[in-house]
Amino acid sequence: MLSRRQWLAAASAATVWPLQARAQANFSAADLAHAERLRELALADGEAWRLVESLTRDVGARPAGSEGDRRANAWALAAFERLKLEAARTEAMNVRVWQRGAAQARLTAPYVQPLVMTALGNSVAAPAGGIEAELAYYPDLKTLAADTSDRARGRIVFIDERTERTRDGSGYGRAVSTRVTGASEAAKRGALALAIRSVGTSSNRIAHTGAMRYDIALPRLPAFAVSTPDADLIAGLQTQAQAQAQAQAQSKLLRLHFTLDAREGVEVVTHNLIAEIKGSELPDEVVLIGAHIDSWDLGQGALDDGAGVAIVMAAAALIQRAGLRPKRTIRVVLFGNEENGFDGAHAYSERYAKVKHQLVGESDFGAARIWRFNHRVSNPALPLMASMAALLAPLGVAWAETGRNEGNPGPDAAVLMRRHRWPAVALTQDGSSYFDVHHTENDTLDKVERAALPFNVACWAVVAWLAAQAPMSF
Amino acid sequence: MLSRRQWLAAASAATVWPLQARAQANFSAADLAHAERLRELALADGEAWRLVESLTRDVGARPAGSEGDRRANAWALAAFERLKLEAARTEAMNVRVWQRGAAQARLTAPYVQPLVMTALGNSVAAPAGGIEAELAYYPDLKTLAADTSDRARGRIVFIDERTERTRDGSGYGRAVSTRVTGASEAAKRGALALAIRSVGTSSNRIAHTGAMRYDIALPRLPAFAVSTPDADLIAGLQTQAQAQAQAQAQSKLLRLHFTLDAREGVEVVTHNLIAEIKGSELPDEVVLIGAHIDSWDLGQGALDDGAGVAIVMAAAALIQRAGLRPKRTIRVVLFGNEENGFDGAHAYSERYAKVKHQLVGESDFGAARIWRFNHRVSNPALPLMASMAALLAPLGVAWAETGRNEGNPGPDAAVLMRRHRWPAVALTQDGSSYFDVHHTENDTLDKVERAALPFNVACWAVVAWLAAQAPMSF
Repeated sequence: MLSRRQWLAAASAATVWPLQARAQANFSAADLAHAERLRELALADGEAWRLVESLTRDVGARPAGSEGDRRANAWALAAFERLKLEAARTEAMNVRVWQRGAAQARLTAPYVQPLVMTALGNSVAAPAGGIEAELAYYPDLKTLAADTSDRARGRIVFIDERTERTRDGSGYGRAVSTRVTGASEAAKRGALALAIRSVGTSSNRIAHTGAMRYDIALPRLPAFAVSTPDADLIAGLQTQAQAQAQAQAQSKLLRLHFTLDAREGVEVVTHNLIAEIKGSELPDEVVLIGAHIDSWDLGQGALDDGAGVAIVMAAAALIQRAGLRPKRTIRVVLFGNEENGFDGAHAYSERYAKVKHQLVGESDFGAARIWRFNHRVSNPALPLMASMAALLAPLGVAWAETGRNEGNPGPDAAVLMRRHRWPAVALTQDGSSYFDVHHTENDTLDKVERAALPFNVACWAVVAWLAAQAPMSF
Repeated sequence: MLSRRQWLAAASAATVWPLQARAQANFSAADLAHAERLRELALADGEAWRLVESLTRDVGARPAGSEGDRRANAWALAAFERLKLEAARTEAMNVRVWQRGAAQARLTAPYVQPLVMTALGNSVAAPAGGIEAELAYYPDLKTLAADTSDRARGRIVFIDERTERTRDGSGYGRAVSTRVTGASEAAKRGALALAIRSVGTSSNRIAHTGAMRYDIALPRLPAFAVSTPDADLIAGLQTQAQAQAQAQAQSKLLRLHFTLDAREGVEVVTHNLIAEIKGSELPDEVVLIGAHIDSWDLGQGALDDGAGVAIVMAAAALIQRAGLRPKRTIRVVLFGNEENGFDGAHAYSERYAKVKHQLVGESDFGAARIWRFNHRVSNPALPLMASMAALLAPLGVAWAETGRNEGNPGPDAAVLMRRHRWPAVALTQDGSSYFDVHHTENDTLDKVERAALPFNVACWAVVAWLAAQAPMSF
């Protein structure tokens, strides 16, 4: 929203003010004191753990429109009531979803070896009886995209792209294109199907799912991921086959057979789940703290995004329980079907297009501690961000150094930010371990770092409270 | 073999001799120098990695009598030849094996939740259509064994026994009874089936298999393990159901449905795989360094026991490559069907009952570094053990402090030791992480700690060489 030059001007203006002076110039001393108190209360609060424990135990996986999704609706309404949040409601939407069927894969040459695999979300089904063909091996998507030969034709393309472990998720960001666009890159070259190394950083024999998309101008190939140890095996056998071919020995070609069943375009109803703390002075202005209620089907949706659901619910509940009444309305939104279409974000965007949003943000990056605070707000609001940053600093949260005021507020919140230019906040969690379990069967409660949850709640409570109290629009 | 008192006498006798004096009194200076050279050569040797990489890539899983087992035979003979080991041979035996079929399980109440599970080895098949029943929850085997009520009758017994992480595997030793004897404990009480928390220390959504046994006087119940996160879910739902029952609210009972197919008593042929370095002076006396060639079907048998196979083969190859000709015969034995019956150990025991064995030992505890040296030898041989211990000490290996001269040489070697009272060596690896992957789909090459292999090879080469050169029988 700000140009680089505008931002630099604002940032340097902010820097020359003493911290205390800035804080006093912006939020009231009372509001800052309340924020400090919320921060301390949050660190002693076990509500987020109770919520994520209950959500994973009593609801489990909750793809849009599933039985689990319906359990989640009832669960959220009961939790909103218990937490004494206001105006609790579900907002229905009709969506078309993809549903997983049975699938399996095995190498059939050089020997029979079952592979641990999972279909990618939105994959078409394979023909009955499956597909068996030679593998065409590519070390990464770039190599496939550059291939002008007919090597892929009539084969199953295998892309061996690796995911780098990073704190900010950038490694996933680079690797995920393989999953999203790989099938159409393979289709361009006459391939029969796509198999990929699981996107993610785990070395477990567990495969990673997630959404893919088809280019409508191209044939739609069935697509799946194999676990990283299975990809290692394929890579090892491929290296050996190449060495044998170069040595003019009999090369042992890799062949693969798979079956994959799935249903596309199934019409279901899902919901956004909403509750509030009504504002006392500006009730029609909204501070939105969000997460998404849906999950992939394979695990319990513990890190993605049960933890986020628990964190933002607990943050709102803490403000309520502290007896604070915000000036603006603080609204918890649990979006439906984030995982495969952002339907909840689009539905919310339509319904609340004309409502003034002071700030939108989303917790959707696991359960680890927040290490960075960023935002996208108007120039005059930057000193208020400095005050927030000062309150977050004791929690080990740094104010973004690079790209300041260019924060990404999370997937659903980003839809809203882009569409309506609503101000946004980004509280970035440490994602170093997130992609070990994200979108896999391993996304279960035991992976949630219990001790980190109160730090997350503290950050969200401070930010939501101060955004609601701010003397100006962001 | 020694009484506690005899051992104490021997140990204190050994302790009062200066180390150098002891060593000179036993092995020749030349043999000790060769041992030191072997140790140094081993640390720079990549052969064990090459072997385990090839075994897991080119052979894969190798349950007794399977296609993988036949590939393993050919693989071992080719490797023995490449490594210039002598008298390479396979020794066939007829065995009856258990073969896994399809299996799945899901909670059906309080809601439908698929469980990650695997059948236990030797489990009978469930009736067609499977079994559905209420769960009878027991926190551990002891509680089940003490239960005099009829709570288990007509139900599926679930035992939630946890495995403690320990360096020496004692945690596994305590927990594994659940797997081995749980089904018969449940059968005594009229249960329909047994489900257990996976034995092992992993928190991955991957289940652990392994052998179980039936009491022949009792009905044989189908038995399986669920992954630890699935066990956590069952435990959480059980706790909640109990709390509801105590609160006189409607308790949500747990119900489970499973199918389990398996074949028992399938007649197959498997083999012990043997190669040697022939002794120059006492060729009919054998130093046996072993491992087992078979593996469970779920993974690649990388840690169990591909690493052991690679370590002992590489140790023998190193002695051969160093141009050393031992006085006694050093024999590498890769036992068949260790996992489900010790058939290879029994066959070897029959065939070689009258051959004098100087020492037997086995590498079958993964790929981590050896931290403890122990043995079971005659009293007069203890000073020779002190010399070996001194040579192993620079590798970070401690001479056993407690239970000295009561070492367990590994599963197959222990069969031989007990049956024939052959002297034995125990080179104990660090098992802290072993039970994270042992007997699971996760037992794949990437779990092998490459850098630790040369340390293992060094220990085995030193011990095998000195045992072959010793001036006396152990």
